[in-house]
Amino acid sequence: MTDTFNRRALLALATAVGTGAAMPSLAQHLDRAGDKHMDDMMAIPPDSPVVAMLIHPKMIALDLIGPMTVLNILRCRIDLVWKDKTPISTELGIPFTATRTFEDCPRDLDVLLVPGGILGTIDCMNDPQVMAFLADRGSRAKWVTSVCTGGLAVAAAGLLKGYDATAHWTIADLLPLMGARHVDRRVVADRNRMTCGGVTAGIDLALTLAAELRGEEAARNVQLIMEYSPMPPFRNGTPAEAGPDRVTAMRARRTWMDAQAMSAATAAGKRLGIPV
Amino acid sequence: MTDTFNRRALLALATAVGTGAAMPSLAQHLDRAGDKHMDDMMAIPPDSPVVAMLIHPKMIALDLIGPMTVLNILRCRIDLVWKDKTPISTELGIPFTATRTFEDCPRDLDVLLVPGGILGTIDCMNDPQVMAFLADRGSRAKWVTSVCTGGLAVAAAGLLKGYDATAHWTIADLLPLMGARHVDRRVVADRNRMTCGGVTAGIDLALTLAAELRGEEAARNVQLIMEYSPMPPFRNGTPAEAGPDRVTAMRARRTWMDAQAMSAATAAGKRLGIPV
Repeated sequence: MTDTFNRRALLALATAVGTGAAMPSLAQHLDRAGDKHMDDMMAIPPDSPVVAMLIHPKMIALDLIGPMTVLNILRCRIDLVWKDKTPISTELGIPFTATRTFEDCPRDLDVLLVPGGILGTIDCMNDPQVMAFLADRGSRAKWVTSVCTGGLAVAAAGLLKGYDATAHWTIADLLPLMGARHVDRRVVADRNRMTCGGVTAGIDLALTLAAELRGEEAARNVQLIMEYSPMPPFRNGTPAEAGPDRVTAMRARRTWMDAQAMSAATAAGKRLGIPV
Repeated sequence: MTDTFNRRALLALATAVGTGAAMPSLAQHLDRAGDKHMDDMMAIPPDSPVVAMLIHPKMIALDLIGPMTVLNILRCRIDLVWKDKTPISTELGIPFTATRTFEDCPRDLDVLLVPGGILGTIDCMNDPQVMAFLADRGSRAKWVTSVCTGGLAVAAAGLLKGYDATAHWTIADLLPLMGARHVDRRVVADRNRMTCGGVTAGIDLALTLAAELRGEEAARNVQLIMEYSPMPPFRNGTPAEAGPDRVTAMRARRTWMDAQAMSAATAAGKRLGIPV
């Protein structure tokens, strides 16, 4: 296969060159290829999708990093957005800092994405400033998307009224309180709304979104670069896979958080005029 | 089902409470559950595994965030480690900052994890200080692990000599230059070495590792919290799935990087006395 042949030729070349010390000549030899590659990597096409990802205190880092990795390889223009540019905390202790504030975030977005993290999500649902920002950008965004419990914040902003949607399995059944129809699928697309299950589902959502934004071939290339051919060691990623005992045990340790989420969803439903 | 019943009871409770404004009474009502939950979340057991994750400039954020999310839910003691505590860049533009330097990183680790990102990996392979750190901690670590191209850095430090291993598909065939046997599997465990394919494979590796560290039930609980029941929209995550045309096209845009990786691997092989 050509591929293998090229590898062999490069191996011979690199072996001939011999040591890292001799790298310059090799680099020089490949300079133009290198420059071209770097240009390819750095260049953001003028028509590249404009993406705003909300960040919020206590968010789950992977809810953001999964989709951001996909859309970054797709060379979208990505901003992280929050009230201000003071670093916010994530559950991992790795701080994220907004690249734009609510004020200077582009008004017309191709993609608005809201990550989750239940405690941060509840704070967002109860925060009029966050709700107003999501409602405004979401009203014009080409795609309104969420990962994990972020779906509750999107719904609380009134953006899922009358839409099929989903969210992290522990709180997805709260979506109807805010006018959404809960559909129990990993990724749910309804018109220009795309929501998904918990944490890791954001990668599946982002690849689905990538195909919508740039076509299937572009999405497939991103998938190959990310080597996304998952092989979980266990089948335990959904309540159905885990079975009722594990689910009930996990629910029991979340009573306090789930009740707070339910109360925030109930309050949002009242604001949105959703009949109880 | 009990689970559903509990949800109904909570719905009734939250609806009775009515609005977010009334939250305090609800919070109060559930205070002890809430405190207990928070204690559960915050407490790191005294016997929890000691984990050091290398960070390096130009690394791929998801290579780290995937496994870190798994091991954080597993309540490991996780340090991010680099030469100093000046923030390093990631491909996403989100900076990571070391929590420990090479000097004050624990000497005896349960897990040493090395993430990838080809350009950063090549720099690590050619950096005696990084190689010396990995060789030292790796010589005593209970588990020596890598994600994506990070496998090349682990191999360059001499830690995969005579071991089965893998790495990102684009450069995994360089592992034998440094004395490893390349096994074409998503996650490869050989004695106390665990390596995996590109980027997203780190999640599969970390769940496999979690079962080794804390038992299968603990790993399954992490998988359920992360809702890890992946459904990629396309089958395109490996060269075999993508087919030769897509693979050859992607190789062609990586000639410069791959040749640099090969030269660094060849130099490392010479240092390690691996016969060409």
